[in-house]
Amino acid sequence: MSERNIKLRLAYDGTNYVGWQRQRDQPTIQQILEEALARMTGERIVLHGAGRTDAGVHALAMIANFQTSAAIPLAAFERGLNSMLPPDIRILAAAEMPLAFHARFSASGKIYGYRFSTAPIMPPCERLYTAHFPGPCDPAAMRAAMPQLMGEHDFSSFEAAGSRPAEGRRGAVRCIQRLELVEDGERPGNFEIIVAGDGFLRHMVRNIVGTLVEVGQGRRTPEEFGQLLAARNRILAGPTAPAHGLVLQEVFY
Amino acid sequence: MSERNIKLRLAYDGTNYVGWQRQRDQPTIQQILEEALARMTGERIVLHGAGRTDAGVHALAMIANFQTSAAIPLAAFERGLNSMLPPDIRILAAAEMPLAFHARFSASGKIYGYRFSTAPIMPPCERLYTAHFPGPCDPAAMRAAMPQLMGEHDFSSFEAAGSRPAEGRRGAVRCIQRLELVEDGERPGNFEIIVAGDGFLRHMVRNIVGTLVEVGQGRRTPEEFGQLLAARNRILAGPTAPAHGLVLQEVFY
Repeated sequence: MSERNIKLRLAYDGTNYVGWQRQRDQPTIQQILEEALARMTGERIVLHGAGRTDAGVHALAMIANFQTSAAIPLAAFERGLNSMLPPDIRILAAAEMPLAFHARFSASGKIYGYRFSTAPIMPPCERLYTAHFPGPCDPAAMRAAMPQLMGEHDFSSFEAAGSRPAEGRRGAVRCIQRLELVEDGERPGNFEIIVAGDGFLRHMVRNIVGTLVEVGQGRRTPEEFGQLLAARNRILAGPTAPAHGLVLQEVFY
Repeated sequence: MSERNIKLRLAYDGTNYVGWQRQRDQPTIQQILEEALARMTGERIVLHGAGRTDAGVHALAMIANFQTSAAIPLAAFERGLNSMLPPDIRILAAAEMPLAFHARFSASGKIYGYRFSTAPIMPPCERLYTAHFPGPCDPAAMRAAMPQLMGEHDFSSFEAAGSRPAEGRRGAVRCIQRLELVEDGERPGNFEIIVAGDGFLRHMVRNIVGTLVEVGQGRRTPEEFGQLLAARNRILAGPTAPAHGLVLQEVFY
């Protein structure tokens, strides 16, 4: 029977997982999905995700693919998986793809959202999806810093501390195509940072957010961003913003 | 030392609790708060809530009061309690009140919101705060039914099954002052029902929502609501909508 390559579009609440990627003895999105797929197909399934979200990071639309020779209709994959998966992981769609398609290597970009509240007290029903940076925060200062990050740069300064130097043709060079700070019109003090790019280093979005928030809080000047990038030194950037404010919103191909 | 009567304004995520009211051996909001207050004051504290939200119901702004002779400043109550409470319960404000104030008996009304999604698949990050009624739902039919519920009525038909007949001067008579269905402009198929009234019977909001959704789904006509109310019989109304879509938004005095 000819091999099929199936693309899944899925959403998850990362709260109860140690991230996307399979780990020994700890619950991950990849493991839960691979186990459900193995039960459906009777095969050992390897699922390739478009990215490896960290512990606590959420996804509105992750893309993943796997190969199978099971003759299961696409609609049955959608329904069948959702009936087996916990409610914090949902399959949104399944599609048949050419064998060459790979969720990670074929991806041309991603868009992330990062939500945070500057209110003195974090509303309990938002605490799992919104980071809390209480106190004054000046959106104009944050916006003044953003243009320096746009376009192609070596983002070593914003890579996870302790990471091995980024490998491959482009090293730590990535291109940020969009970077915006949106304030919630109905609830002042609640913000979302939207960032789109052709790829992201480990912790890159969270390190950019953590540093931008320091600018908003007046603890850094917007001008420092240019120097930070040029220094290519993680030690100079701000703290890594908490994982639970981050949502993978879309993967582009 | 003279007795003080302190009003707390608080918010909570009801997901991990069996409701507001103290129960033997199961976690409740009231118990967690009373224990934190006892630790702060060194007294045995009885906390009166404006209402007894069911298991899984959330609150954006519950009001509660307690009496104490502890000489603790109000700001210290706010800060001290939040440092002791889990993040799914937050004190928003504390205020000094006349001794006659009682969170429940002094309340003149409440406003609730009920969120639901009719999308085929429930987004994981909303699943704890939004009920799921997948499939076609006609907001116009639901809105056509609503005027019959407005104003003063005997709401026995929408009281929790198995409740003892409502006691007191007004029995099961309540007045609904506002009832609206709002569709999320950015995400069609996501709705919120807003209902304000001078008081609510047990499960009344959830039974009204469950019955309205049946109207939206074409399983009842809007006209049936008048008959339902007149019948004063719980058996005729629709199912009780799930608790987790419900949020106590405000209490009026």
